[in-house]
Amino acid sequence: MELFNVLTVQQARDTLRSHLPARAKTEVVPLLQGLNRILAQDIVALEDVPNFDRSTMDGYALRARDTFGATESLPAYVDVSGEVLMGEEASGALTAGQAWLIPTGGMLPPGADAVVMVEYTEELDSQTIGVTRPVAPGENLVRRGEDVARGTVVLTAGHRLRPQELGLLAAVGVTQVPVMKPFKVGILSTGNELMAPDQPAEPGKVRDINSYTLYGQVLEAGGLPILYGIIEDHFETLQQTMAKALAENDLVLISGGSSVGARDITAKVIETMGSPGVLFHGMAIKPGKPTIGAVVEGKVVLGLPGHPVSAMVVFDLLARPMIASGGLYQNVGSFPLRAAITRNIHSATGRDDYLRVTLRRQEDGTIVADPVLGKSGLISTMVKAVGVAHIPLNKEGVEAGELVDVWLF
Amino acid sequence: MELFNVLTVQQARDTLRSHLPARAKTEVVPLLQGLNRILAQDIVALEDVPNFDRSTMDGYALRARDTFGATESLPAYVDVSGEVLMGEEASGALTAGQAWLIPTGGMLPPGADAVVMVEYTEELDSQTIGVTRPVAPGENLVRRGEDVARGTVVLTAGHRLRPQELGLLAAVGVTQVPVMKPFKVGILSTGNELMAPDQPAEPGKVRDINSYTLYGQVLEAGGLPILYGIIEDHFETLQQTMAKALAENDLVLISGGSSVGARDITAKVIETMGSPGVLFHGMAIKPGKPTIGAVVEGKVVLGLPGHPVSAMVVFDLLARPMIASGGLYQNVGSFPLRAAITRNIHSATGRDDYLRVTLRRQEDGTIVADPVLGKSGLISTMVKAVGVAHIPLNKEGVEAGELVDVWLF
Repeated sequence: MELFNVLTVQQARDTLRSHLPARAKTEVVPLLQGLNRILAQDIVALEDVPNFDRSTMDGYALRARDTFGATESLPAYVDVSGEVLMGEEASGALTAGQAWLIPTGGMLPPGADAVVMVEYTEELDSQTIGVTRPVAPGENLVRRGEDVARGTVVLTAGHRLRPQELGLLAAVGVTQVPVMKPFKVGILSTGNELMAPDQPAEPGKVRDINSYTLYGQVLEAGGLPILYGIIEDHFETLQQTMAKALAENDLVLISGGSSVGARDITAKVIETMGSPGVLFHGMAIKPGKPTIGAVVEGKVVLGLPGHPVSAMVVFDLLARPMIASGGLYQNVGSFPLRAAITRNIHSATGRDDYLRVTLRRQEDGTIVADPVLGKSGLISTMVKAVGVAHIPLNKEGVEAGELVDVWLF
Repeated sequence: MELFNVLTVQQARDTLRSHLPARAKTEVVPLLQGLNRILAQDIVALEDVPNFDRSTMDGYALRARDTFGATESLPAYVDVSGEVLMGEEASGALTAGQAWLIPTGGMLPPGADAVVMVEYTEELDSQTIGVTRPVAPGENLVRRGEDVARGTVVLTAGHRLRPQELGLLAAVGVTQVPVMKPFKVGILSTGNELMAPDQPAEPGKVRDINSYTLYGQVLEAGGLPILYGIIEDHFETLQQTMAKALAENDLVLISGGSSVGARDITAKVIETMGSPGVLFHGMAIKPGKPTIGAVVEGKVVLGLPGHPVSAMVVFDLLARPMIASGGLYQNVGSFPLRAAITRNIHSATGRDDYLRVTLRRQEDGTIVADPVLGKSGLISTMVKAVGVAHIPLNKEGVEAGELVDVWLF
């Protein structure tokens, strides 16, 4: 067997990234189609939000200094000399000793600098109110530009658009959004033992699982998956399909080839596709060791293990960050939760271990992680699990009760 | 002002659920379209997975008892009398003293009960190998039915289909999947101060944010959003649009009406739509207090606060679990992470507080949560935040350093 070039997860990511072009394929989409897309440019606000001082209460707009010293026994009296209508500009300016009725969300009249809640006023006559509590300048209002100040960068390139980013873009009047084009991802399953799920069972054959799990994972990551089906372990056949998949996609995932002979074919086929070719062959992780990482002519090929659990774990570590960042391979800023593992787990040092787990909440609010045991060929173990616990490569294992990082699915 | 019927979050959920019909609208979709859909029926496996004993190593299939006592100095000798081809049934049965060459993933021949790795064998001649280490029955193989046993319920109704569930369904040969129809959700924004994001700024007006944040939230929850646009605060106009939205959807979200007068119109309009009508008016939470919950003729109407942050928080608490469970309003089994809050936060007892936070990882691996301060009218605070920290209703606040639950966006 050839000498493997085995990398850690971090080395594998760095190696792939260093061979990738800075990605530049962008497009402009209507705001409502922007969810989960990655911004391609910084967005600068061209207006203040709100673009006027805005009341946050039902009450009276006035000058704060006209209320100084007011108490219930000695209210400050002001003249009700106007009313602000919702969505409209005040019909004039407010002067000393005046108060204008204003609704929550209304625009302050010029001259006013605060709002007193209706609860802290008493009506003296139809023209006059007594204010029973002083307000400070700026009280009960949102200042012009307090949410977003004109001229500021509100979102930077590379930012993923969540529902709140759609809202922010609406607020600043951006309804056409420059985003990265979604990553196209070709998915190939190899192995003479594989059969399509819609075919009747045959002795010696198993149904293709990885095409379906990877299809779902690519969609979840924000990519566009294309299935190339089950390819037999045959050099020319695989070469032909691989060439087609590379031409049509940004990233090609080829899973299977779990036997040594099949793995060799995959690596050899990749080497014929262009340069630099195979960058690593094997990762210091469990599960997922027999992973191949390659770049050919600016596109990535990942040879994933045939075991369904291993293929899913390696996808999450190497493919998902690439797809989810629009090819930039940036940290997407997600956080694991911390949970106490419920049993001793051995792990070899120098290897990252990813352990399927379920989680339980204890009465004191702490969260514990129960390992789901089972071979990495068993897809049922991934269905039982809600996430994976990480045992870092510098650790020899974890003891029951120790806190571990759990990445939820 | 009328007497509010103020409920806690849990009471609000229970109240809505108790008035909802057990949801029954289902459809059948191809497996590849099943991602994130909710299963409508239990799925029973009609076959064992795998449906044969399967090797997990490259090596030799044999009878474990033929290797008992084998050592490097005294190997057990067996005859190489066959070869298993990948994806094919063995051409015959294995008998005592025999070994068949087998690839990873290959089907065990009848008579064999274990696989010895090629690394623990030595070739004596072309017909004979020495096994240098004993194997136990069942070693290096996946037993027939070990992943999924025929006749078992592999997934239950109400289960959300993640990538691994697609894989499991493929494994058992289910390529057409019975799922809940997605929840249709109508979205209305009310308020005379609102303008569409693609219009030039006007004094006194603000752009409609909630239509966009809610649209994104509904999509993320697995629902189908329909926008009904900006509706003016006018009884008949609102009544007409509400009737249309109720006819076309399973759930109607109406946001805005932040002033007392506008809130009253929303509640009155809902009351004309059918029975039982408004179930609660106000929730013991911050932000999100002025929330209206109603059921009319088996459909839900939620009157959300106008402030964008409040509307998003209430959506997550009341609407998302309903949509994400296909209307069953079940716990979707998600977990918060635990983080130490970095400052003292006051909270009134008897009220659930949801605090926008960012998160930081500390050197020892622990996670801390920094509150994002700012009024609930400011969408920019939601863009800064990565989640919300929960201060439960029985607490008067939290002290710096205390662990809180953080729900990631």
